[in-house]
Amino acid sequence: MGHVDISTALQRIAAIVGPSGVVAPADAAGLLVDERQLFSGAAALIVRPASVEQCAQVIRTCHEAGLGVVPQGGNTGYCGGATPFDAQRQILLSMARMNHVREIDPIGFTMTAEAGVVLAKAQTAAREQELLFPLSMGSEGSCQLGEVLSTNAGGLAVLRYGTARDLVLGLEVVLPNGDVLSELKGLRKDNTGYDLKALFLGAEGTLGVITAVVLKLFPEPRVRQTAWVAVASVDAACRLLSRARRESGDQVVSAEYISRRSLELVLAHVRGARDPLDSAAPHYVLLELASADEEGVLRDRLERIFSRCTRCRRGRRRRDRGLR
Amino acid sequence: MGHVDISTALQRIAAIVGPSGVVAPADAAGLLVDERQLFSGAAALIVRPASVEQCAQVIRTCHEAGLGVVPQGGNTGYCGGATPFDAQRQILLSMARMNHVREIDPIGFTMTAEAGVVLAKAQTAAREQELLFPLSMGSEGSCQLGEVLSTNAGGLAVLRYGTARDLVLGLEVVLPNGDVLSELKGLRKDNTGYDLKALFLGAEGTLGVITAVVLKLFPEPRVRQTAWVAVASVDAACRLLSRARRESGDQVVSAEYISRRSLELVLAHVRGARDPLDSAAPHYVLLELASADEEGVLRDRLERIFSRCTRCRRGRRRRDRGLR
Repeated sequence: MGHVDISTALQRIAAIVGPSGVVAPADAAGLLVDERQLFSGAAALIVRPASVEQCAQVIRTCHEAGLGVVPQGGNTGYCGGATPFDAQRQILLSMARMNHVREIDPIGFTMTAEAGVVLAKAQTAAREQELLFPLSMGSEGSCQLGEVLSTNAGGLAVLRYGTARDLVLGLEVVLPNGDVLSELKGLRKDNTGYDLKALFLGAEGTLGVITAVVLKLFPEPRVRQTAWVAVASVDAACRLLSRARRESGDQVVSAEYISRRSLELVLAHVRGARDPLDSAAPHYVLLELASADEEGVLRDRLERIFSRCTRCRRGRRRRDRGLR
Repeated sequence: MGHVDISTALQRIAAIVGPSGVVAPADAAGLLVDERQLFSGAAALIVRPASVEQCAQVIRTCHEAGLGVVPQGGNTGYCGGATPFDAQRQILLSMARMNHVREIDPIGFTMTAEAGVVLAKAQTAAREQELLFPLSMGSEGSCQLGEVLSTNAGGLAVLRYGTARDLVLGLEVVLPNGDVLSELKGLRKDNTGYDLKALFLGAEGTLGVITAVVLKLFPEPRVRQTAWVAVASVDAACRLLSRARRESGDQVVSAEYISRRSLELVLAHVRGARDPLDSAAPHYVLLELASADEEGVLRDRLERIFSRCTRCRRGRRRRDRGLR
């Protein structure tokens, strides 16, 4: 490391990505400040490689010159992790130009996509094939695949589909020395060797830069049903969730616990918000179920879950039988 | 390594596990030959530790003396990987005494169990709580959890539930120097830090010895339906599987492709076997679906999948619409 001088390295990097790959200082402001505007950074150069080859050459050059690399996706983080801070010895590596969905396999239920693809675009690409990419979160309109995988994001549907890590079958990564680790395979029953790719999922870019990924897709549910349920205790909320998972055969996609206190804060401060129920309860659960059934079938199932829930207040023993 | 002499180390190891932890040579034959009887091995000592502490002390002592450690579960492997071969410089570490299911959490859908628990015992323990541990394979009556995790076994239900690696939330491992890495947590939405545990799942014992595990459990399906389907081509088999996944909302648990040639070998050599269908077809698919529905609902769904399959022979375009 450090056997190439920095200004030479920066020139080389600019040449690797070409004029359209270098972000001019005038366009850089949004990239050097984090989402919450808590950190304002600086970088010796901001580049947007267009391919894994360019990405690898850039990182190799940084390695040789001892330059730090700060990878950045949609810059939606809340911790400043994508903000560089050294105007002399760091570059910002934006993945925004590597934004192609390379392939969707509707038989094998996989999508191969570059790391700079915005999450919502990946969701849409799956939906166009009547498939589901289940990772979903508030920032999905701007966060990128590489970013959600590097942070092992959870999102709304963890309960049914797992975190980002659970949704990855294959990965392409540029290592800190510029070597490319390419395991872009979509085989589900692959049980050969070490699961090296798992190391990069959640590593926040510390072990390499994710450049492409093979994602698991799922059948798109036909119907969704959402329920807002008042419960007497936190314990009852947990039992309700367990019952809903059992009764539905794991069709619970999301479950969120909400205390009365949280609800009251919303009612007090959010204009137009109203209490969904007529009387107050100390605790609530927001449940979402999704299935391939007709709408009525799923609604009936949801109602059965709650009817057993009422019965269980009458007698514990009876409820236990009811769960069989 | 190697600064303790071997005979001293072997005495220490015997003392660590106590008399009931040392397997006498007379009882050792079944442990030193592999399942297919292709390899006949030898070891300086065969021990069965009763706890993670004993296991760690044994491995630390081996490390200090330069003794090799060959861990063994139910000895069901087909590759001789659990057979030691050096009567001077290797010990066999059997996990058979670490066979306790420590806890089942019916609300959080997890099981904490020791590595020597036989797979069928883990399945039964889950079923007693009306839950499912979905890993299932021919050797389930004798293979152990540590063994199926170390080899990242797949089994019959990979399509719906993934391989062994996908079923693990937490892990306890003794590292080659005798240190214990304990991450026995059951939190599903854990997205902190590197996924170190993933490295040991599929490592075949090369990175450490798995001593305990937190497994994911699932709602136990109420009904199962199995279908044996004749198809015109391998391509049609793939399309059928895709259609079944979509139509059922991912209730396909198993799918197995079988060629006419394989079937004919069975018919020729297995006494009492008969062709399930009246006329021969070039290719077959064996499908299993499972759900929380009533039996009739799942059967109707299966029939709908096949009726669309018939329709698709009449006109491709119509089938494509049918899938919406």
